[in-house]
Amino acid sequence: MVGRTIATKLVSIGHEVRMGSRTADNDTAVGWAAEAGARASNGTFADAAAFGEVVFNCVSGRHTLAALESAGAQNLDGKVLVELANPLDFSTGAMKLTVANTDSLAERVQRAFPGARVVKSLNTMNCDLMVDPTLLPEDTEVFVCGDDPGARAQVSAWLQEWFGWRAPLDLGDLTAARGLEAWLHLWLRLYGALGTTRFNLKIVRAP
Amino acid sequence: MVGRTIATKLVSIGHEVRMGSRTADNDTAVGWAAEAGARASNGTFADAAAFGEVVFNCVSGRHTLAALESAGAQNLDGKVLVELANPLDFSTGAMKLTVANTDSLAERVQRAFPGARVVKSLNTMNCDLMVDPTLLPEDTEVFVCGDDPGARAQVSAWLQEWFGWRAPLDLGDLTAARGLEAWLHLWLRLYGALGTTRFNLKIVRAP
Repeated sequence: MVGRTIATKLVSIGHEVRMGSRTADNDTAVGWAAEAGARASNGTFADAAAFGEVVFNCVSGRHTLAALESAGAQNLDGKVLVELANPLDFSTGAMKLTVANTDSLAERVQRAFPGARVVKSLNTMNCDLMVDPTLLPEDTEVFVCGDDPGARAQVSAWLQEWFGWRAPLDLGDLTAARGLEAWLHLWLRLYGALGTTRFNLKIVRAP
Repeated sequence: MVGRTIATKLVSIGHEVRMGSRTADNDTAVGWAAEAGARASNGTFADAAAFGEVVFNCVSGRHTLAALESAGAQNLDGKVLVELANPLDFSTGAMKLTVANTDSLAERVQRAFPGARVVKSLNTMNCDLMVDPTLLPEDTEVFVCGDDPGARAQVSAWLQEWFGWRAPLDLGDLTAARGLEAWLHLWLRLYGALGTTRFNLKIVRAP
């Protein structure tokens, strides 16, 4: 759902998008490519990663490392990899993160693919808001972090130009992903309290 | 600093406050009690807990359980215990929490003192904002969670009446403290990015 939302938005503003799946004949991806028009295509994770100038990881947290392995390090080298996944685990009832506090999924991805320019972003909200922050009545926050300052600046520019965000908050190196992923603990409780996924946080500071 | 800020505010609006320390002759507490007027006093943790109709835990996370042991379970039984501490550990350089993800300091406190009515609140911001949310130019959020709905409602009412908050967001049972304490990961990076402690989050939702 996250991948389809991002991909559809990018196609709608003129980009060519290849959606990757475990197999090139994935029904959902084939269906999306058929519907989304001439700039949309699909293939394996490796096809998609080789095709893209920028790669969005929209796979669930528990499948992220395997999907990127399948995509192939050589297809990620030197590219900006926008890492949106949350390492959620509901197997024991209460939500927990499979990595937390002293490490993060984004850092694991960066260590596994040192040639990729990993930027954690967009994981802090529901996907409809990712590509249309104007669904909310006020400007809210999107964050970026990553070890490559140039990649962070590039993703910040894209978030504004492509999706309509105000200037993202740049949290610095990739260890900040520990905070962005830990936000899901609070996000899920807010979802429970508010009864909607259509909310986001805004940072209010003193003048 | 947190305790002094809360205590000074409570005295200023007419409450009697006893500040607890490890020893009754703690210089800072004695000085505070002398300055803060007739409604202010100080003593041991046990003195303070026995005196209070409500207890605020403003001790640092790593000393919280020891301070409450010293306060004495019999002095906490049946009382609302507002738990403000964050289990921060900077001993290895990067901040980490000493308890996280599948447990929280607030839950540990509740397990250790089953007779106390623990409500986690106010730990998500700097102390000047706790007692004066109007320092920020917009309404922002304060949260409550705890296993006793009556205690949550009581603390919510106090936050509005004593400190001037708008209606707190009630996140339900005490496991939500995992999210409130994990917020510190993000808070610290925001502090770094913004260069000020005078900020807070506001939840913006769709109409």
